[in-house]
Amino acid sequence: MDIKTLALQLHRKHRGKIALKSKVSVDNQHDLSIYYTPGVAEPCREIAKDKSLVYEYTSKSNWVAVVTNGTAVLGLGDIGVHASLPVMEGKAILFKQFGGVDAFPICIASKDVDEIVKTVKLIETSFGGINLEDIGAPACFEIEERLIESLDIPVFHDDQHGTAVVALAALINSLKIVGKRISEVKIVINGAGAAGIATAKLLLKYGAKNIVVCDKHGAIYEGREEDMNKYKEEIAKITNREGINGSLKKAIEGADVFIGLSVANVLGEDDVKKMSANAIVMAMANPIPEIMPDIAKKAGARIVCTGRSDFNNQVNNVLAFPGIFRGALDVMATRITDEMKIAAAEAIAKIAEEELSEDYVIPKPFNKRVAFEVALAVAKKAMEQKIARLYLNDDELTSRILSMLSM
Amino acid sequence: MDIKTLALQLHRKHRGKIALKSKVSVDNQHDLSIYYTPGVAEPCREIAKDKSLVYEYTSKSNWVAVVTNGTAVLGLGDIGVHASLPVMEGKAILFKQFGGVDAFPICIASKDVDEIVKTVKLIETSFGGINLEDIGAPACFEIEERLIESLDIPVFHDDQHGTAVVALAALINSLKIVGKRISEVKIVINGAGAAGIATAKLLLKYGAKNIVVCDKHGAIYEGREEDMNKYKEEIAKITNREGINGSLKKAIEGADVFIGLSVANVLGEDDVKKMSANAIVMAMANPIPEIMPDIAKKAGARIVCTGRSDFNNQVNNVLAFPGIFRGALDVMATRITDEMKIAAAEAIAKIAEEELSEDYVIPKPFNKRVAFEVALAVAKKAMEQKIARLYLNDDELTSRILSMLSM
Repeated sequence: MDIKTLALQLHRKHRGKIALKSKVSVDNQHDLSIYYTPGVAEPCREIAKDKSLVYEYTSKSNWVAVVTNGTAVLGLGDIGVHASLPVMEGKAILFKQFGGVDAFPICIASKDVDEIVKTVKLIETSFGGINLEDIGAPACFEIEERLIESLDIPVFHDDQHGTAVVALAALINSLKIVGKRISEVKIVINGAGAAGIATAKLLLKYGAKNIVVCDKHGAIYEGREEDMNKYKEEIAKITNREGINGSLKKAIEGADVFIGLSVANVLGEDDVKKMSANAIVMAMANPIPEIMPDIAKKAGARIVCTGRSDFNNQVNNVLAFPGIFRGALDVMATRITDEMKIAAAEAIAKIAEEELSEDYVIPKPFNKRVAFEVALAVAKKAMEQKIARLYLNDDELTSRILSMLSM
Repeated sequence: MDIKTLALQLHRKHRGKIALKSKVSVDNQHDLSIYYTPGVAEPCREIAKDKSLVYEYTSKSNWVAVVTNGTAVLGLGDIGVHASLPVMEGKAILFKQFGGVDAFPICIASKDVDEIVKTVKLIETSFGGINLEDIGAPACFEIEERLIESLDIPVFHDDQHGTAVVALAALINSLKIVGKRISEVKIVINGAGAAGIATAKLLLKYGAKNIVVCDKHGAIYEGREEDMNKYKEEIAKITNREGINGSLKKAIEGADVFIGLSVANVLGEDDVKKMSANAIVMAMANPIPEIMPDIAKKAGARIVCTGRSDFNNQVNNVLAFPGIFRGALDVMATRITDEMKIAAAEAIAKIAEEELSEDYVIPKPFNKRVAFEVALAVAKKAMEQKIARLYLNDDELTSRILSMLSM
């Protein structure tokens, strides 16, 4: 049976993918009096006196809301909140499976930024973190910015930062293989949506100096008039120092790195041929990459990554978000900073480093070390940056992360 | 160790009571391709074409939002959303344990009716039902009314209707014992909050003719000016036909039934003495009833019910809400009607009927038959009333309910 038929059949059979699990049992009157009335009044009273105790007496500390408005679901686009739910439930089970994080889908039936921000703020109480998912650009940027400003729990748009982190991880290792330095390479990012813009910013933060971001109209440069927005304007100011003006085909000339976060088949064999020696091609469009690996290799690319599991070097967000949230939640970080994202990328890269090759620049999604190492690195960075609310020594942190990962 | 200390200790130890359970396992690349990309796109596409398929391919059909704004939590009052969370998590695990219903706490940080209604409407997608909880009167009435109007899933304020259903169940059996008919008895309800008003309405619907509702100012009658609201005005119109005007002490004279949904110790021994022979006293204030059972009995009450587990005849909402939602969800009812509530009350009463006595007018909370019988009765009534979206024969319905209860 093919994947499509099987996916329909199994989703129908199980009627979705998520259920509640009670962490305690209520088998008799005594249990009922502890976990419900009258006993439950005690934690209520304590939290009423000191709000921060909500982290001690409730499950808030391990729940993440997977928030969408259904406007940019997978490659399917604006399919609405109902149709987005299978993806949000999928994300929730990945959070649980890979990161021991309890996640719940919050599908907000609105395209209004104010309404979405307000809704999340109003229902924040039960959650220790907010993962934004499949919300279209540029609304996603403003929603994230405003939520980060107004909430004291981590807010993280995975399509932006999860992608940026795994792309950076793959790039760190790829650069080691080809012997180039991030500060010296020319990087072309194709795609100026959520993922493209966030990746450009994170690479700049990591030390990249020469990035050109392209969208379907070509290179983004200061002064371009076609199809700009506030976020592309900002990108225009901080990238493309040479002021390249023209199509991807022009921008790609002499590039050391191509990062595709766009659509199928937009990079040709000829384009790769125009890249510099030892080119790195990260073609992450799903399910069909910007260029197929065999063609990119034939055209001279030394390293090729895609988003697909049936090729080597799969750049998959599941390497990042479960561990990032695990680490942030376990020290009760108030936000997820760029430095924490970089720590995550370096942790991911380091795991593959031991067996590094052109066909293995990033760990496999099911490598169990990944979430642990990412969580550890992220939690340590949060404490170092003094944005944690819980400060643990190495032993305490390790055992906390391990125990949460196994739940 | 006393209950209070133990409750604090266990809530802290488990860090709350709820977690996510994945209904499927994601152990390898194949699973990932079924439950996440690319396979998950198929149910998304199907739902985009036909929204009703969200019931088939997602977990919507079994999730209930436990919605509060923290304004009337237990007997603690307006303690805020954070402090309400232990109760909402407690409710969630009771839903799961007693009804096989997956429930998630949505604590809305607002006292504005419009804002609360809008928030629930915006996030309704993931839920098959809405259980309102611990929202103060009279806001709770308007919130419920407006949500019922605008959503096509069941909306049920348990503090109102759950309480009304179990009170009716206990009353049905108590009347059998004393040999009186609902249409002939005088019933005094003390308390004109959520529970009192809903109970009065449900008893009227069931055939009661002579009800007097009192609040702390005494009987509610048409034309009263003190401390009225839209909902008390409505009650004044449909109850108290004799126009009793005065305190509870006056109203109670000659009453056959006292239903207390108010506060501790407001009913005196002398008051019970003024009731008619074979008086039924349901003193459900928690944790301290309106009158203690031994005093009520001594004063001549034939049957006494309370909300407490350490006395006979515990009138506990857990007898109602899990089965009511189970039944409503299993036939995808669009609402929960008065007739469904009455069917639930009758089903509960019937279970105790077999061993009926003055000390056993209502089943014990841990009687496993209750949720099943309630679900069956509610689901059948929904189909009979043509407000179900799924029509099952008896065998199908029974096996569906049993399988959901055991999940």
